[in-house]
Amino acid sequence: MNQNLQVPSQASEKFSSLPLSQGKRARLWRLLYGSGPKNGSLLVLPLDQGLEHGPTDFFPHPPAVDPDYQFELAAAGGFSAIALGIGLAEKYMSGYAGRVPLILKLNGKTNIPGDAEATSPLFASVEDAVRLGADAVGYTMYVGSPRQHDEFRQFEQVRRDCERYGMPLVLWSYPRGSAVNAKGGTNTLYAQDYAARVALELGADIVKLHEPNDSVANVPAPYDTLMEDSAARCARVVRSAGRTMVLFSGGEKNDDNAAVLRKVEHYMQSGANGVMFGRNMWLRPFDQAVNLVRQVHDIMAKHPR
Amino acid sequence: MNQNLQVPSQASEKFSSLPLSQGKRARLWRLLYGSGPKNGSLLVLPLDQGLEHGPTDFFPHPPAVDPDYQFELAAAGGFSAIALGIGLAEKYMSGYAGRVPLILKLNGKTNIPGDAEATSPLFASVEDAVRLGADAVGYTMYVGSPRQHDEFRQFEQVRRDCERYGMPLVLWSYPRGSAVNAKGGTNTLYAQDYAARVALELGADIVKLHEPNDSVANVPAPYDTLMEDSAARCARVVRSAGRTMVLFSGGEKNDDNAAVLRKVEHYMQSGANGVMFGRNMWLRPFDQAVNLVRQVHDIMAKHPR
Amino acid sequence: MNQNLQVPSQASEKFSSLPLSQGKRARLWRLLYGSGPKNGSLLVLPLDQGLEHGPTDFFPHPPAVDPDYQFELAAAGGFSAIALGIGLAEKYMSGYAGRVPLILKLNGKTNIPGDAEATSPLFASVEDAVRLGADAVGYTMYVGSPRQHDEFRQFEQVRRDCERYGMPLVLWSYPRGSAVNAKGGTNTLYAQDYAARVALELGADIVKLHEPNDSVANVPAPYDTLMEDSAARCARVVRSAGRTMVLFSGGEKNDDNAAVLRKVEHYMQSGANGVMFGRNMWLRPFDQAVNLVRQVHDIMAKHPR
Amino acid sequence: MNQNLQVPSQASEKFSSLPLSQGKRARLWRLLYGSGPKNGSLLVLPLDQGLEHGPTDFFPHPPAVDPDYQFELAAAGGFSAIALGIGLAEKYMSGYAGRVPLILKLNGKTNIPGDAEATSPLFASVEDAVRLGADAVGYTMYVGSPRQHDEFRQFEQVRRDCERYGMPLVLWSYPRGSAVNAKGGTNTLYAQDYAARVALELGADIVKLHEPNDSVANVPAPYDTLMEDSAARCARVVRSAGRTMVLFSGGEKNDDNAAVLRKVEHYMQSGANGVMFGRNMWLRPFDQAVNLVRQVHDIMAKHPR
Amino acid sequence: MNQNLQVPSQASEKFSSLPLSQGKRARLWRLLYGSGPKNGSLLVLPLDQGLEHGPTDFFPHPPAVDPDYQFELAAAGGFSAIALGIGLAEKYMSGYAGRVPLILKLNGKTNIPGDAEATSPLFASVEDAVRLGADAVGYTMYVGSPRQHDEFRQFEQVRRDCERYGMPLVLWSYPRGSAVNAKGGTNTLYAQDYAARVALELGADIVKLHEPNDSVANVPAPYDTLMEDSAARCARVVRSAGRTMVLFSGGEKNDDNAAVLRKVEHYMQSGANGVMFGRNMWLRPFDQAVNLVRQVHDIMAKHPR
Repeated sequence: MNQNLQVPSQASEKFSSLPLSQGKRARLWRLLYGSGPKNGSLLVLPLDQGLEHGPTDFFPHPPAVDPDYQFELAAAGGFSAIALGIGLAEKYMSGYAGRVPLILKLNGKTNIPGDAEATSPLFASVEDAVRLGADAVGYTMYVGSPRQHDEFRQFEQVRRDCERYGMPLVLWSYPRGSAVNAKGGTNTLYAQDYAARVALELGADIVKLHEPNDSVANVPAPYDTLMEDSAARCARVVRSAGRTMVLFSGGEKNDDNAAVLRKVEHYMQSGANGVMFGRNMWLRPFDQAVNLVRQVHDIMAKHPR
Repeated sequence: MNQNLQVPSQASEKFSSLPLSQGKRARLWRLLYGSGPKNGSLLVLPLDQGLEHGPTDFFPHPPAVDPDYQFELAAAGGFSAIALGIGLAEKYMSGYAGRVPLILKLNGKTNIPGDAEATSPLFASVEDAVRLGADAVGYTMYVGSPRQHDEFRQFEQVRRDCERYGMPLVLWSYPRGSAVNAKGGTNTLYAQDYAARVALELGADIVKLHEPNDSVANVPAPYDTLMEDSAARCARVVRSAGRTMVLFSGGEKNDDNAAVLRKVEHYMQSGANGVMFGRNMWLRPFDQAVNLVRQVHDIMAKHPR
Repeated sequence: MNQNLQVPSQASEKFSSLPLSQGKRARLWRLLYGSGPKNGSLLVLPLDQGLEHGPTDFFPHPPAVDPDYQFELAAAGGFSAIALGIGLAEKYMSGYAGRVPLILKLNGKTNIPGDAEATSPLFASVEDAVRLGADAVGYTMYVGSPRQHDEFRQFEQVRRDCERYGMPLVLWSYPRGSAVNAKGGTNTLYAQDYAARVALELGADIVKLHEPNDSVANVPAPYDTLMEDSAARCARVVRSAGRTMVLFSGGEKNDDNAAVLRKVEHYMQSGANGVMFGRNMWLRPFDQAVNLVRQVHDIMAKHPR
Repeated sequence: MNQNLQVPSQASEKFSSLPLSQGKRARLWRLLYGSGPKNGSLLVLPLDQGLEHGPTDFFPHPPAVDPDYQFELAAAGGFSAIALGIGLAEKYMSGYAGRVPLILKLNGKTNIPGDAEATSPLFASVEDAVRLGADAVGYTMYVGSPRQHDEFRQFEQVRRDCERYGMPLVLWSYPRGSAVNAKGGTNTLYAQDYAARVALELGADIVKLHEPNDSVANVPAPYDTLMEDSAARCARVVRSAGRTMVLFSGGEKNDDNAAVLRKVEHYMQSGANGVMFGRNMWLRPFDQAVNLVRQVHDIMAKHPR
Repeated sequence: MNQNLQVPSQASEKFSSLPLSQGKRARLWRLLYGSGPKNGSLLVLPLDQGLEHGPTDFFPHPPAVDPDYQFELAAAGGFSAIALGIGLAEKYMSGYAGRVPLILKLNGKTNIPGDAEATSPLFASVEDAVRLGADAVGYTMYVGSPRQHDEFRQFEQVRRDCERYGMPLVLWSYPRGSAVNAKGGTNTLYAQDYAARVALELGADIVKLHEPNDSVANVPAPYDTLMEDSAARCARVVRSAGRTMVLFSGGEKNDDNAAVLRKVEHYMQSGANGVMFGRNMWLRPFDQAVNLVRQVHDIMAKHPR
């Protein structure tokens, strides 16, 4: 598909001016200008829900339980990359290697225990990512968790290895845990804005965030009295992330295609670098998903980065 | 015994297409086509109950307390492999080396403390397995335990060493702990289905599961309203495990031979790669066990993988 | 700006007599005599509030959310150094490298969970500081926290690496946690005096402290009956810090410029080596901040060290 | 004394058939056939009570507080080995080196805190044992403790080093902790039988156990209804330990010499490899102890292994 | 001062017969015969109170807050060594190097949190001690603390490095924590006697203890009925420490010089190797302290070791 899109394969001045090591520059170039929209924006297909939520997430569309489904979709839909863990990468990727760039997710957990003291253990390494030819690694951090001490130290280990190998680091920056809940919950502007800044200060190259909602219940000042519309909220968190590129989550499946597309438009207008679309893509019949992603490409083509 | 079985010693196309390192391929070939049923299926004799449950498990058939009993049975019954820990392997295996393939179990625990915060510490290493000539290692993970953080990180260490040495990794994927109990217990379809997917996503080559039961009490949606028969439940977890091969547990001893054989037939029809039979074998008088396993071989011969 | 100040570029006898390794001496010389007031005193601009407090701190002056603002201010205001974390240093510093010395902060946390068991995990290393050309590292220790065991051991790792690389160590020595609260709180003379001595005994080269207040509620003896004025309190903690140089915190923003300048005068008269001014600088319009820092320079020029 | 005993210095067929590395074989040979009874049985003098119980244990016979007392007794009594920690070995052993073989105990604890979460930290290493010329190391594991995770992992480290250096491993396998207490206590047949099997499965060469009592209160099935006499109970745990040699504890001091000797006879008839006699030896006047151990030798001479 | 004392510079037979590595022997010789009383006894000036208790301890004699005061006193008073941490050693010692031997204290803590779960983290290493030319290291262990597991393992790391570098190890063996309190408290004969033996069994070369008191409330048997006078109590703990040399603590400041000197006489008669005098020395005006220490030397001269 992406062959049909009229996008520049020339990096933007902004990208060129980022102070990156050669390895990071080469790998980020492939993600931003060598695949997907190829205009500096990013369209990522994540597949970690089987681990994070269980097979439950595949029930609405049973073919999606077979990881080949997502790989086929990533290839046919011209996604910038697929993001998944070591087991799926090792057992399913070889047929797609080179065609579909890989973001190897290094940590994760089941959702069987509660999230009050959320922490996400490593189960793969940056060296695994290098060995498998990945173009980035993904790391989930539970911002504000009572166990943030463990989270930060584990992150440091990953960041250091990324530095060593020139591997871009995508941070799933997720506010989580009892203290976050007590301050209004995980998707408030307060929580998402903080999560964006944490990603910047800790050294992520790209951060995945959720669209901030307008809830102010229990939220600390001055967010509790901040009345911003959705566009302003998105723009705010993008601004807080600074030179760390923002990907917004596509969230749960929405059958209203027009709404999905409006959301993409909305995200791109806020200054984000792209979108991570999982269930909203792979829970649709294949052709419908390919059709939808084609329209997403059309939007992203209008927002070079 | 296995000399009498008419099974191909040629690997299936499915096995040949798996993306395996040379070491893993060689060792898995030995387990799948060089021993046991030799048709790609697996029949494993585990002996970790003395550690996991205590000598209690040997009371119904006292000769079984002597590990030689299980080694003799594994040899006479044409099992694909025996699965046990470092102490038993070092002290009893030398007379059977070469004849009986070894799956070295690396972790374990006693059942004296409760399982609310279950975790299974390592007491041997992949290097031990290499030194002892094992063809795979076994690792028990308590999926959903409040200590899953420790479990995942320890697993990562094992997985990395398996990668380094080309050692296949068999995951005993056991839902366990207070949160699992609160969501319906360890053997529900919900729990077993999740455990199967975890094994796939974390990178196990083979997973040992329990037959999912039909209990829906306290089970999360949509499993609480899912009405599937036993065959469908087994097929579902096999599907969730994807390219990770499934072994079902033979479970507690059942004196009804016909029932045991029906269960084997049932498991193999679901798409599983084999069965792990411990107490159902070594709690029987030797000749009766050999006779039973001969019939199991007859069933497995009809299900090449 | 600092070109206009009449300051000696000759190290004081006191500095020359400090028993420092060559690397530490070279880097400290650059901070004390090669930049900022250049007379042995220190004027540091910290930017870790986005991580420690969240983007909240930038609300009063929105341009401050862009780290370029602080870098520009550090350069224009002739600060001795800017103090910030790895993400900001890697993504924003290259344009200022050489012009603005760097104190790389190695640890930090969000303030989402409470401080009862405060601990500050490492997310960068002394080697990162070397790689980025920093002239010192910053480390936050929560003195008296129930988790001081973790804090001390982590600090030891940093101190050892500082020794190895000749890197000066600036300790943010912050009394914090439930036991500190029970003994009167974090900014009492008791707590700050103890924090000063801890910095000296553990081997910090420079310590950042807060101005001790006059509260004696719940404070242990003999501090509970000690009636010292503000000057005496400041002088006391400087004395307790011994040969570890003291920087006082500029604290929250104060719109009364004269009061801010009186505070600087006050600190310098107490024997401190300098001031760390964050929000009191970068929450002002740029020109006003530059104007204020010019007056701070005038004061510091009168207090060579 | 042992010069007077008529014992073979030829290893038994059973010993010869054990699959041992050369280093373990050499060191075990010295313990079993080169010292003590020299017939494959073991008579060990332990001295760790000062650490485990405090100086309290020496009160009944004050000369015993001087470790020279035990070294002299080990030499005069022809013990197979003395078992003690690094401090005693380094400060008292040099005069006895070569004459009295050493089992270096690697871990231990005080009994000041309760045993509900018992764990026994390492305070010496297998490398220390090699350096000091020890013929085995001793390791205490609290079987069934809530902290068995730490215990197993620490044991693994010791076992691996024993493998590397060819050092025999003697496991003090002690059921301990709140869960053990809830299941009947530490010296029941249930607990000792489990402890024996754990030693075998984890890879101990020799295990020290306590004589199982006949208490069935709170003991799990089927032990709660098992009515075995003392001989049968001892024989059972020896059987559960398999090829791991069993040493029974001599227990607290008993002034009835005949009873002590009957106990030794009893242990040896059960199939155990020997006895570990501490307080029952060194709390006696020297000559009486030597006289008693002479009679113990007479019994052990009748039980070659 | 010590030039005036008539002491042998020849090591005693007892010292010569200790089985020490060459490095330990050389360094201990310097402490025992090359400085201080030079007759095998030890007189140590500790300065860790600023960290352990806070600057509070300096209030009775303000000049003592400046570490130069203690260094001057150690030199003028002919102390065997000064004992303090890395920060003080690095920043104040260079002018006294060679004149005043150094015992580098490796761990410590503040007393802000309570002692119920006391543990003392490392903040320097044996390698630091080597680098700084120390003649011994000091390590504090909280005997009987609920966290003794951490304490022992950390100690093992220090002991191993002491072995590697030939560095004598002085153990501050302090009963501490909730369980100690429940058994009568930290300074009972029970607690101090146990602490003495722990030091011996774990391998300390020298142990610092407190004079045991005569309290028997809540103390375990047989100590609860033991009626020994002060001399007997001191002699007992010295005996329990065996070949580990004992230093008694000088304790809190006592203005009655005669009482202080009687205490020294008392300690030396009990068989101890010396005394550690902190506050009782450096809280006095300099000349008075020097005068007092001169009289202490006179006593110690009568007790060669």
